Amino acid sequence: MSVDAAAAPGALMATEIADQPSVLDGILTRSPKEIAEIVARIKAAAPRFVILAARGTSDHAALYAKYLLEIRLGLPCGLASPSTMTTYGARPDLRGVLFISVSQSGGSPDLVESMTTARACGALTLAVTNAPQSPLAAAAELHLDVHAGPERAVAATKSYTAELLSLYLLVDALAGGDGAAARSLPHAVATTLVHAGSIGQIAKAHANTDRVVVTGRGYSYPTARETALKLMETSYIAASAFSGADLLHGPLAMVTSGSAVITIVPDGKGGKAMQPVLERLREVSADLIVIGSAANVDGHSGIVLPAGLHEEVSPIVEIVPLQVLARELAVARGFDPDRPRGLKKVTETW
Amino acid sequence: MSVDAAAAPGALMATEIADQPSVLDGILTRSPKEIAEIVARIKAAAPRFVILAARGTSDHAALYAKYLLEIRLGLPCGLASPSTMTTYGARPDLRGVLFISVSQSGGSPDLVESMTTARACGALTLAVTNAPQSPLAAAAELHLDVHAGPERAVAATKSYTAELLSLYLLVDALAGGDGAAARSLPHAVATTLVHAGSIGQIAKAHANTDRVVVTGRGYSYPTARETALKLMETSYIAASAFSGADLLHGPLAMVTSGSAVITIVPDGKGGKAMQPVLERLREVSADLIVIGSAANVDGHSGIVLPAGLHEEVSPIVEIVPLQVLARELAVARGFDPDRPRGLKKVTETW
Repeated sequence: MSVDAAAAPGALMATEIADQPSVLDGILTRSPKEIAEIVARIKAAAPRFVILAARGTSDHAALYAKYLLEIRLGLPCGLASPSTMTTYGARPDLRGVLFISVSQSGGSPDLVESMTTARACGALTLAVTNAPQSPLAAAAELHLDVHAGPERAVAATKSYTAELLSLYLLVDALAGGDGAAARSLPHAVATTLVHAGSIGQIAKAHANTDRVVVTGRGYSYPTARETALKLMETSYIAASAFSGADLLHGPLAMVTSGSAVITIVPDGKGGKAMQPVLERLREVSADLIVIGSAANVDGHSGIVLPAGLHEEVSPIVEIVPLQVLARELAVARGFDPDRPRGLKKVTETW
Repeated sequence: MSVDAAAAPGALMATEIADQPSVLDGILTRSPKEIAEIVARIKAAAPRFVILAARGTSDHAALYAKYLLEIRLGLPCGLASPSTMTTYGARPDLRGVLFISVSQSGGSPDLVESMTTARACGALTLAVTNAPQSPLAAAAELHLDVHAGPERAVAATKSYTAELLSLYLLVDALAGGDGAAARSLPHAVATTLVHAGSIGQIAKAHANTDRVVVTGRGYSYPTARETALKLMETSYIAASAFSGADLLHGPLAMVTSGSAVITIVPDGKGGKAMQPVLERLREVSADLIVIGSAANVDGHSGIVLPAGLHEEVSPIVEIVPLQVLARELAVARGFDPDRPRGLKKVTETW
């Protein structure tokens, strides 16, 4: 990081977005051996249930892992409400439970406390972090390093895709896979970044947009959540994410002619399940921005994802043009996405 | 319901909000015996884990139940992502799991399908609905009727508090309680409705507000979620809900001087854990609307909750002035909250 680069608005975030192909490549090289040891420990424990604890961006990686664990392994999962253990002192019976905490910094006191409590309550504990020396990694029996490298921008980008890929490789290995679907990811992300040039136009056209709905389904629902957070923290847009099904249960009322709606519609079952939602959005003449397969983007502004990507790893590519959009929107609106109002890199909550 | 009443904007919603003390009173009279039978069945099964499946307003009742089950019973819980079973065909191992689906209508096909799948996968299944003759009730082994009576307004109000109280009585009975903390609820809600007159002023002052953040923690986090949904579906405001901790992990950036923020801060541990969040919101000069204890409301616009309410049942009272606010805001903005754009009473999703 040069001082000059840091001075231009969003330069740090741009550098880290552009780093992602090489970060993903590094994970594919380094992680399988580390993961094999963790897999052996988890298999020996034979958990019946998984609880995932995380906050912010990492909570969206945890949600992605929930879909993978339930669909690939048939392991029921829950996302923790950390306050039940920290604020209310709950001491649940966690025998037979795999407790996974995901955190870029591994530094938030409430996550460390719930990890410690979960371990004392009988769970097998795994910390997934970008900080092997962190208190969270120390509190857990097992640690998976996501190898994102130092992340300097406040808005997490490469640590998110690193968390996603690390969790994918872990679940795939637990299911007996060899990570084949992930091998094309560095190339797919690099290709997507090359095509991301047109996002500048989309950002300019929406520079005055003050509210956005983001929607996707299944594996792409975490992408919708992460996109909304990126837009909130860099562009201060009131962005709300809904699964396609939940959008129809109420929030659709606030979408009307010209409302900006970002939809994530890749190939696969999740994208197919989004078709009725897309129809409803077209009926109300929403201003659609589509990230997805060529057929789904056709006729809308948006970004076409590389063809042939397996749906399970698609979120690792989908989010990249949306990170670019968040950055470009912030700059178009006159903000510096590297210096979001009121935020620090490590958020400590209790 | 007279035709005249239905013609005035929000008349149906107003009637159903006002019905709540009598609905809650009816539940306290009728439900304990029905719940005793369900409790016996659950105790015999001795579940190790609970999965809750719901959408929209009922999803917020499910989230409330998650806090209660984890804190009162030490039973780890997860909220289902129904699409894992319906869209992706997951067949998780649910032996030892209590699977609870919450739905006002009991009619959404995806919830019926996930209930049927959960039962086939070995879970003990319980439907919590306002419709004993519904497909969801038929698909489950056990059914808990929330006795809200016919609900005609599209925006759910009395069915929400009826779901909350029914779930409270169920968990309290599972924990060996006698429902004592709930007995004052009909009176507390009636008192709150009397004091709700001042909400008209708050609504008028915010008639042009286009975006709102809603926040609470612990038991009050479901209240924040439900408030945001009510504002979206009746007033078309871009309302986003965050737990107090998650708000600090990013979304706080979009809150600045004059941003409208509704905070729910009752007495108890959740309200206490919100104090650092309130401080941050005051630092950035947010336009705070506070629903909570007298000490927390002091100096802000807001509504004081009746004193002496146990934190576990506080959500059943907290939401009521916020339902009134949603209705009054919709009317002040020139909308009819009984006829939200693009919504039907029963939402069918797949």
